[in-house]
Amino acid sequence: MTTDIDRAGIPFEAEEYANRQRRAREAAREAGFDALLIADPANLYYLTGYNAWSFYMPQVLYFPVEGEPVFILREMDANGAHRTATGIARERIFGYPETLIHQHDSHPGQWIAQKLRELGLGGSAGQDARVGYEGEAHFFTVRTFRYLQEELPNWRLDECHDLVNWVRLVKSPAEIEYLRAAGRVCDHAISQGVGALYAGRPANEVAAEILHAQAQGPVAYADEDARGQLVDGDYPAIVPMLPTGEGADTPHLTWSNSPMPANEGISFEIAGVHRRYHAPMARTAVIGTPSKELERLAGFTVEGMLAALEVVRPGATAHEVTEAFTREIAKGGYTKNSRLGYSIGIGFPPDWGERTVSLRRDDQTVLQENMTFHLIAGMWMTGYGFEASDSIRVTDSGVERLTSYPRDLITIPNRSLL
Amino acid sequence: MTTDIDRAGIPFEAEEYANRQRRAREAAREAGFDALLIADPANLYYLTGYNAWSFYMPQVLYFPVEGEPVFILREMDANGAHRTATGIARERIFGYPETLIHQHDSHPGQWIAQKLRELGLGGSAGQDARVGYEGEAHFFTVRTFRYLQEELPNWRLDECHDLVNWVRLVKSPAEIEYLRAAGRVCDHAISQGVGALYAGRPANEVAAEILHAQAQGPVAYADEDARGQLVDGDYPAIVPMLPTGEGADTPHLTWSNSPMPANEGISFEIAGVHRRYHAPMARTAVIGTPSKELERLAGFTVEGMLAALEVVRPGATAHEVTEAFTREIAKGGYTKNSRLGYSIGIGFPPDWGERTVSLRRDDQTVLQENMTFHLIAGMWMTGYGFEASDSIRVTDSGVERLTSYPRDLITIPNRSLL
Repeated sequence: MTTDIDRAGIPFEAEEYANRQRRAREAAREAGFDALLIADPANLYYLTGYNAWSFYMPQVLYFPVEGEPVFILREMDANGAHRTATGIARERIFGYPETLIHQHDSHPGQWIAQKLRELGLGGSAGQDARVGYEGEAHFFTVRTFRYLQEELPNWRLDECHDLVNWVRLVKSPAEIEYLRAAGRVCDHAISQGVGALYAGRPANEVAAEILHAQAQGPVAYADEDARGQLVDGDYPAIVPMLPTGEGADTPHLTWSNSPMPANEGISFEIAGVHRRYHAPMARTAVIGTPSKELERLAGFTVEGMLAALEVVRPGATAHEVTEAFTREIAKGGYTKNSRLGYSIGIGFPPDWGERTVSLRRDDQTVLQENMTFHLIAGMWMTGYGFEASDSIRVTDSGVERLTSYPRDLITIPNRSLL
Repeated sequence: MTTDIDRAGIPFEAEEYANRQRRAREAAREAGFDALLIADPANLYYLTGYNAWSFYMPQVLYFPVEGEPVFILREMDANGAHRTATGIARERIFGYPETLIHQHDSHPGQWIAQKLRELGLGGSAGQDARVGYEGEAHFFTVRTFRYLQEELPNWRLDECHDLVNWVRLVKSPAEIEYLRAAGRVCDHAISQGVGALYAGRPANEVAAEILHAQAQGPVAYADEDARGQLVDGDYPAIVPMLPTGEGADTPHLTWSNSPMPANEGISFEIAGVHRRYHAPMARTAVIGTPSKELERLAGFTVEGMLAALEVVRPGATAHEVTEAFTREIAKGGYTKNSRLGYSIGIGFPPDWGERTVSLRRDDQTVLQENMTFHLIAGMWMTGYGFEASDSIRVTDSGVERLTSYPRDLITIPNRSLL
């Protein structure tokens, strides 16, 4: 997994970025935009390679249908942005001054607008530029939006409805390799998490083992020559979720120092990450003896997953995959209101989903080769729950699992440590 | 650090939440609002205790000046929200249906608006309700804002300019205890990071050790009776920053698998976290021999920090603290454009700053007892850099450090491992 490109932290060849930008440009043109304003860090990374934890301050990529993009961010981040943003010309990166940060009556949005006007990109009176913004991107704040709206009166700002997210939907061969590497990191992290369990252990200690494994990646082989086979981990867009015991009916709880319970479900929902590509996985374990109701739920849920995976192939719809799951769990008398999954790829906090295709009833998206999904069967009942999931790729004729850890309810002997 | 309240994951007594809400209500009334719309997860946690990784989906707290607040979030999260949101009545928590998520033509914002209208909170024609929104909160998307604007025509939506963030500025005694605990976690995590360094070690492996230490907290004492003294860690709002070598001129780079260099600066910028309270710290280390220019920079920077800390006390201004630093480093011919620090407390991704007071020139905020800051002297030169910082509390007469690790440039012998 280690090439010269890798070592420098630059994940893709220049040609890959050129291809991505070309496809995004075409999609923007088709949608009738003159330019897009990109703020979602995953879209910035996809189009340019830019990768730093700077997204808590305003930053936008002005991405025109004709001409070169312009990237504007905080000055201290702009200085070194070229180290990762190899898909954009260095002289098209601009930094706004530090003095604009966290002020009551001024804002970086004003500086961004002025810079774009100076570059002749502000449109002209009587001939508005139609510029698409990302209305659901997490780091494009309302304040930034309103300042741009005010300061660029010759722009017609319209929602682009996650346009670049949709361009990301079908993965390139290079991306698939990264997702496979992410799957190996995830297998390793789940193994470490399960291995860390004993009754009474504080949940934060289990989380610590998982976080370590996620960053480290699989441990070294005995053979030093195999070191090149190591897969380095990266930070996940979402920290490990460990709903346990009674709280296992609630997804998205993080951890406390509560002791791991015996004889109750402990769910893991984590991702392996390699160069920002995410392969998530959920599993459920019990220390000691699971309840009959949990065992029953687990059995039907896993059967449902198998039925859904049977349907995955090019030409099938997201709806059909979901219905296969729904039919199978109905045999046990179960229903599921929430989605069965969603498209995955690049992830930055706070989410590793792509916000495009959902595996759910009535999503008629037709699956294509090299789409990738997190198929997650999260069954949250009252007072207990079971979760299992796979990260998958649609192949030319079926499905490839990106993770390989067994799906069934995991049971661990409740050994006394004393 | 372990009380009954702790073990249940509920960090504060009911009275503390009541106090906080009263203060926020008063501030909102003074600012002329009828209600606030709160989406910032740190503000939600502050006012209600709500703590889950659900902020990647729309969620808002309607917080009126008169009457009880209403919390609306995704259905799967609403079900278990009472487990952490103890500062709000359970029957005032509502969940919007799963089917609204990631759709092209519908949005949870519509459901939220309708629910608020049903509850009689939508204002009335001719008598607009003045509702304050958080324009710079990271998870209050433009799409949510625009749907609320459209569906609540009797609301006058005005920026509240981080009103609740300002209410958080002076910490309660209980909060101070959590910040001290966070400082202990941070000391531990920095120690583990420094201890993990050797030349050639992939950066992601060093990050793994830090992440582990952040979640675990300080290691067990030999004396089992002292276990109650352990401080459990929590996830940081920002992952470890490890700018190294040439990249040390760039803040906010995360890690790759690049080998740790010898004889060049390696900066750490991390936080210790306890129950979402953050005590950040930056340090810089060299494996082998630092350059003369780095040693010189480090010397003046640390002197500058000491000079700044000398000034910190109730009655001094943020401006004065900054000027003390500026004067000291000027003796070495150095200048600093970026802030010397900012207010800290509760943090959720993507930032651990409170977005209120900055330690910088022209910020005339008068320091008060129990304000807490991250005083960070980040000096990014061309091709090298030095960072050191302290998390501090303003005491009744001076300053308390929340972290204790020595500030000077850390040098580690470059031992061969072979």
